[in-house]
Formats: sequence, C-alpha cells, structure tokens
Amino acid sequence: MPLPIALLDRLAAVLGPHGLLTDPSDLGPYLAEQRGLFQGTAQAVARPLDTAQVAQVVGLCAEAGVAIVPQGGNTGLVGGGVASGDDLVVSLGRMNRLRWIDAENYRIAVDAGCVLAEVQRAAREAGCLFPLSLAAEGSCQIGGNLSSNAGGVGVLRYGNARELCLGLEVVLADGRVWNGMTALAKDNTGYALRQMFIGAEGTLGIITGAVLKLFPAPRESATALCALSDLGAAPRLLSLARKRSGDSVTAFELIPRLGLEMAVRHMPGCRDPLADPAPWYALIELSSSREAGDNDESGLGATLEGLLAGAFDEGIISDAVLAGSLEQQAALWRLREGLSEAQKFEGASIKHDVSVPISRVVEFITEASAAVERALPGIRPCPFGHIGDGNIHFNLTQPPGMDRAAFLALWAPMNRIVHDIVDAMEGSISAEHGIGQLKTAELARYKAPVELEMMRAIKAAFDPRNLMNPGKVLPPAP
Amino acid sequence: MPLPIALLDRLAAVLGPHGLLTDPSDLGPYLAEQRGLFQGTAQAVARPLDTAQVAQVVGLCAEAGVAIVPQGGNTGLVGGGVASGDDLVVSLGRMNRLRWIDAENYRIAVDAGCVLAEVQRAAREAGCLFPLSLAAEGSCQIGGNLSSNAGGVGVLRYGNARELCLGLEVVLADGRVWNGMTALAKDNTGYALRQMFIGAEGTLGIITGAVLKLFPAPRESATALCALSDLGAAPRLLSLARKRSGDSVTAFELIPRLGLEMAVRHMPGCRDPLADPAPWYALIELSSSREAGDNDESGLGATLEGLLAGAFDEGIISDAVLAGSLEQQAALWRLREGLSEAQKFEGASIKHDVSVPISRVVEFITEASAAVERALPGIRPCPFGHIGDGNIHFNLTQPPGMDRAAFLALWAPMNRIVHDIVDAMEGSISAEHGIGQLKTAELARYKAPVELEMMRAIKAAFDPRNLMNPGKVLPPAP
Repeated sequence: MPLPIALLDRLAAVLGPHGLLTDPSDLGPYLAEQRGLFQGTAQAVARPLDTAQVAQVVGLCAEAGVAIVPQGGNTGLVGGGVASGDDLVVSLGRMNRLRWIDAENYRIAVDAGCVLAEVQRAAREAGCLFPLSLAAEGSCQIGGNLSSNAGGVGVLRYGNARELCLGLEVVLADGRVWNGMTALAKDNTGYALRQMFIGAEGTLGIITGAVLKLFPAPRESATALCALSDLGAAPRLLSLARKRSGDSVTAFELIPRLGLEMAVRHMPGCRDPLADPAPWYALIELSSSREAGDNDESGLGATLEGLLAGAFDEGIISDAVLAGSLEQQAALWRLREGLSEAQKFEGASIKHDVSVPISRVVEFITEASAAVERALPGIRPCPFGHIGDGNIHFNLTQPPGMDRAAFLALWAPMNRIVHDIVDAMEGSISAEHGIGQLKTAELARYKAPVELEMMRAIKAAFDPRNLMNPGKVLPPAP
Repeated sequence: MPLPIALLDRLAAVLGPHGLLTDPSDLGPYLAEQRGLFQGTAQAVARPLDTAQVAQVVGLCAEAGVAIVPQGGNTGLVGGGVASGDDLVVSLGRMNRLRWIDAENYRIAVDAGCVLAEVQRAAREAGCLFPLSLAAEGSCQIGGNLSSNAGGVGVLRYGNARELCLGLEVVLADGRVWNGMTALAKDNTGYALRQMFIGAEGTLGIITGAVLKLFPAPRESATALCALSDLGAAPRLLSLARKRSGDSVTAFELIPRLGLEMAVRHMPGCRDPLADPAPWYALIELSSSREAGDNDESGLGATLEGLLAGAFDEGIISDAVLAGSLEQQAALWRLREGLSEAQKFEGASIKHDVSVPISRVVEFITEASAAVERALPGIRPCPFGHIGDGNIHFNLTQPPGMDRAAFLALWAPMNRIVHDIVDAMEGSISAEHGIGQLKTAELARYKAPVELEMMRAIKAAFDPRNLMNPGKVLPPAP
C-alpha cells in the first residue's frame, strides 16, 4: 500500500525543501545495506532538522498508521535500518549539532545525527576523550551507536555506548518528546527509562539527542603485538596485564595467524613485524591520563615492557614487538583493523559476532573451529577481535576454490553450529552488532520464552501499534 | 483484610520451619524503619532459602491476590521496604550463598541476600576488589543494593550498583523465574531487561541473584584532607585532580566546616588535623592497581602531593594534610563518615539527597543554603557528600534550642524550597536513595507527565495487578 498522498504533502510542509526525499534516484543510499544481505524499499525518506520536526513526522505517521524506520549513518550490520514495504525512513543525518560541551566536568551534549568521529574530534579539541571507537566511526552516528549499544575497541576500559550515556532525548511512538537530557552522574528517581531505548534499535522510539560522558585525554600509551605460544595464553596474558597495570589496559585484541597473513597479503602498509610465525597474536594497548614521572621507569612503556618480560618468562608469549613511536603504534593497529577488509579478498565470509564468558573463550574457539571444520573440510575459521570482552568475531572464510554462492548457502547451518556452542556456554549470539532483522529467528531459538515475553510486553508498552521499526529485534509472536 | 489462612498454610508448607514468621514478637525487625519515619505492619514474613522458594511464594501470593514487599537488609532511607496493611514481607536474608567466583576474569555470582560486606570480603580474599561501598555495608544486601541502584563513595571511579552488575536472576510478579545470570561483558540481544529491575525498588519483581564485576585490587592509594579557600574551589580541585591523575581519583567528598566541627565534637577519635579552620574541606582519595615503580616519585603519594602543591599555588586550597599511613587514612575517612551520625547529637535533621550537574554544584549549595536560611533563620545547613558525582546530602540541622517537633513539621516546606532549586538546575531530587514511599509525591511534582506515563506503562507490563511492592516508586495515578 503506497503512502497516502495527503501524508506526503503534510510531511513535505513540515520538513521544508530538502527535508523529504521522494525521487527514487535520491533514495539509493538510504535503502542500500552495506554487506549486501538486504535491499531496502521505501517511497520516501524524511530528513528532519531538529527534534520538533522529528516529533511532527512521527505524529503524522502515527495518525496515518504508517511505520517508521529510523536511520543513522546506515552502517549497521544486521539490517536494523533497512526499510521494507511502505515504511517511511527517518534519517537523522541533518541533525548534527553539538549542543554544548563542558570539558571541565567531562560532559558533551549532541544531536543524534552527529557522526561519531565528529564527537571524538570535539572532545579532543576540548582536551578530552570520547572513547567510543569502531571501524565505521567516520560515518556512523551517535543516535545509531546508542540505539545499537555499540561496542568497538575501547569497551574493556570504557564500556559500551550504554555506559557512556548520561541522558537522552527521545521522540516516542506517538510523537511526544521525552526530554531525558540529564547530565547527572547519579539519579535514582524511578525506572531507568534511558536504558530501554539504548540498544532497542529504534523499535521503541527515535533517539534525537544525547548527553555523553567524556574522559581525561590519555597522556601516554603503550602498544605491543605479542606472539602467543597457544590460544590458552590469551586470557592468561590479559589477566597478567590487568594485574600488573590495573585499569590501564585499554584494548586487548586477538589476531589469528591466518588473519595476520590475510592482512599482510592484501592490505597496503601491513607487514608482519615479528621474525617467526606464531599461531595467535594479542594486540595490547595500555593508556593513562596520569602524568608520567620525570624518569622513564614510571611510564607505561616500562610497565608494558615489564609485564611482557614476565609473560615471556612464564612461557605465555614467545615474542613481542613494542611500538616505539606513534607511527609504529598505528602500524600495529593497521594489522588488526585490516583484518575485516582483507578477508574479502579471500572469498566469501560467514560471520558471527558472539561472546562467551572470558573464562570459556579458549574452549569456545577451539570447539567451534573443530565443529565447522568437521562440517566443511577446508573452511578457514578466522576468529578475531575483542577477546578482552569475551567478544569474538568468529568469521569463516570459504575454502579456496569453493563456489561462493554454494558457500554462502551454508550461512544458516554454520550459524546453527556456532550459536549452539555459544548457547551451551551461556554466551551471546550478538555481542555488539544487535539483532536487527538478521537475527530475529536466532533470538527466537535461543532466548527463553519468559524473556521474549518480557520483551514483547515492553514493546507493547512503548509502541502498542508496532509502528517503530517493525520486524526488527522482536521475533514474530509464536 | 487479613491474609487467608489457606495461604499461610501453603506458605508454611513451602518454606518449612523458620521459613515463615507469623508470631508478632518475631516481626519487629522487619517492620521497623531505621529513621523512624515509617512504621510497617504485616502479619507474616517469608524467609525463603532459595530461588525456587521465592518463586513458589510469589506464585501463591499472585494466586491469592496478596501483595508482596521484598526486603533486603532493611537499611533503605525512603521507606521502600516498609510493609503496610496486609502485604507479605519477603525477606531475602537467608539466601546468602556465594554462587561462584572467577577472580582471573573478575566476576562473582551471589544470592541476593548476601550482605554487601561479605561480597567485599569474598572479593578481597580472592585478590580482587568489589568497589560498592556505603555506610550500611555491614547489613545491607546485594539485592537491595541493586534494587535501589546504590551509590556510595566509590561511584566516581567505579559507578553505581547498576554499572557493577552483569547479570540478574529475578522472580517475576507471576512467580516465573527469569534467568538473566549472564557473565558477559557484551550482549546485544534485545532489550536491556536487567536495567529495568535495577533501581526499580522491588516494584517489578524480586531480584534473587546477581553476577557482579570485580576489579583488580588497588596496590596503592593516597588520601588527603584539603582546606578549601571557598566552595568554588571544590570543583576546580576535582577537575585538576582528574587532569593530573586521570582515572586514579577514587573518591572526592565535600565536608563543610560545620560538619567537621560536629564530627570532632561528638564522634570518638575524630579530630581536626589542620591548624586553621577553613569554610570547606575536600577529602580526596587516589588509588591504583598499577604496580608502582621502584622509586617514590612514581607513586600516587607523589602524584597527590604534586597536584596539591599546584592547587596551593593556584589558590585553590589553603592547606592540606596527606595521610602518611593507613591509620591516618582511616582517621581522615572517620571525619567524613562520622558526619551523618554526629548530626543526631545536634538535634533533628531535615534531609535531602540531591544531585545537580557538577558545573552547578556551587551555585546550588549557595542558593539553597540562602533560601533555607531566609525561611528559617538559625537553621544550620550541612551540605556534604559525593560532590565528585554532583551528589550532595543537603542536610539541615535544626536551629539550637528550637523545638524538635516544630522543626520536623517543616520537612515538606523545606523539601519544596530545596527541590524547586534542584529542579530549576536540572538536577535530581533523589540522587542515590531512591523514591520508596517517602518521595512519591515529590516525583509526581517534578517528573514530566510523559515520563510518569512511561513508568506506569512499564509497571503495567511487568506487574499488571500491582502486587509487587505497591505504593512504592510510582505516585498514584492522577
């Protein structure tokens, strides 16, 4: 059923010139999905300039019974921002004002459409750090980051997007505005409403603004790539690092030999910095905003060197390279960041974004790798990522020479194998990417009925007519 | 209406000997409220031993339409655990098992009835830190801490109870059990259900178990009491401390001269460690789990000394005393901790537990003090507490010689004056104590109607028959 002409007219009147796109040739970027797993369809994209316009748009759609797909930078990985049928896409990208910044008290307030990298930059220019950091930071938006409770490489130290948020402004399903833009460290006045919208992927309302925490800018950092004797060394190294350096461990990322090889083979500027190959690597970064003493021995470089020496003596690592400059630091990170991109050159990939308790991460990788290899000999598991959070991107590269489509046809059965193992270990089938529409069936399979019922009750409480991003997050009722 | 005999019989059968108290002489401790603001009434107290018993009790009550008041250590300050009428009190105190601890990965799982100090001790014995710390820690329970999203003195560094919780087990209003006892750092599979129960004060279900975060034990700490030139120096000192020592600032507490005098006057072992009186003091503690270098200059003591020297040069502080030993550290903390108790010796107190954005904390204290002094000349404001979180315990001691009852009759009008100022500054009328039954009317006054409606919708979704701690948190519908 097409959108009513009267609604489009009223939306156009509210949104003004450039505020409502209806020409099919303009809609492409809002309908495409970056992994090519979904193709959106929509007749119109609303591009409001401020919260009042969002409220009016939602109100008009509620009146007309038209569903809305909120969209940030459209960088999601689970199809959460993909429109289908006759939804109206509401794109927040023109709402990109910095509302205020209070560097003295480590707070910033922004429109939801601010690009993450711009928020990082504003913080940096004020002498602070906004620590949320992930691959899409150049185009993803804060509203999307909060709606998907984004993770990334700084979670070990600073937490997910949820932990970085102090206040929210939300347009509710009926078009009313909830002003929850508090800048308070402590507020125990009733239910934690903010927490409901964070991670809800736009299914309960549209986040239009946020107050975020800032942190003192790091004064020093130290980075090393460590060659691990075996996979079991990874959690032991992490534990040792936390014990020896306390809260200075900012990132702790796992890289398998295969991943390093792929990065070196395909990504410009990537090279293996160590003499001998090792089966696994850990990229470790310490950082601190504490003023370093006058001598080198009190610096983080010395701390890292000391703990790596200890790890070597205990047989946890067989070799390591410490970055001696910012350039070398960037080169080590390039190995980690090049991984995702590099996999594309090796054929198709079946992806999993899972987490398990850190105590079981070795068992998980070992067991899941063996299981997928049994199911498809020649498959190339490339488990990498935020092992410090128990979060593994368990990606499976196709066997060399296998037909791409035939391999991708195994997406669901491979998911089943991997997710069953995750579930048996009390893990999560979506550690940081969310559910979107990609994983609703998996959610139905692995969540207890009582939990699905609670989720449906919340959905009914906030969006009784199912007009906010329908078909996302919640599986269809049984 | 008395509880049905049949229900009491069935409860007794489920709970076994000692599991159901009905003798009025046994009920006293469960009905008393520590500030004497409320007096509970109830015919029976259920004391389940495990989650299954809680589920059965709740199921039986749901069937009989009997309301439940969940109770932890009964140390709340807003009457949230006080029963009225014919409620059944469900006391979690016998559910006090440590379920498991994983020190390597900084996790602990406990029954809801574990006393906070016991959880701290279990963590310490495993070489870790559980950082939640507050005055009632010797008797309050983890379930209550989570239900009230407890704060305390470590929030600046480690967050509230909410931030320390990874997983929950909850008995829902219909008696079903939700097992959300995940130990995952990252899990983006649907709505943040855990967050709904944290801070809900038992109005949505009964928390029966929790997985909590641990931290590396601090290896060193440094504590100082600083004499501030004026109140405005407090946030400047905090900002300087965070800049210079980064995340090492663990606590930052404000003490007014009046409070210090009261502590010295009434509390054994309290003395003023500084030569000259100052109008305000800040108690600052740095701590770190980072291994100190071999020389003194890299230690936190040196960091603190350096930043205090800087603060002195800038005129932020006029004097300071650094604790040179653990004993001296404890003596400085005794001044801060003795404050609440000491006030009792000076007459009645009208209390406020408020927060404002840190940038406005000076303005708030100044304005609110002047306003209450205008309203009642001779009143003695004693604003103290967690100024690093913008959280002030704005306590008002009665004028010397005034009639106690006449002073306490001013509770509501004084609340009005103070809370109106808090509200105008976008603050919170309950920073860490919650709403309970003490502040439901205040909540109705200060919350936007849209927010109250959202809260009611959540209550209706989780507890449609209003059997879980009725009359608490939510104001009566208009």
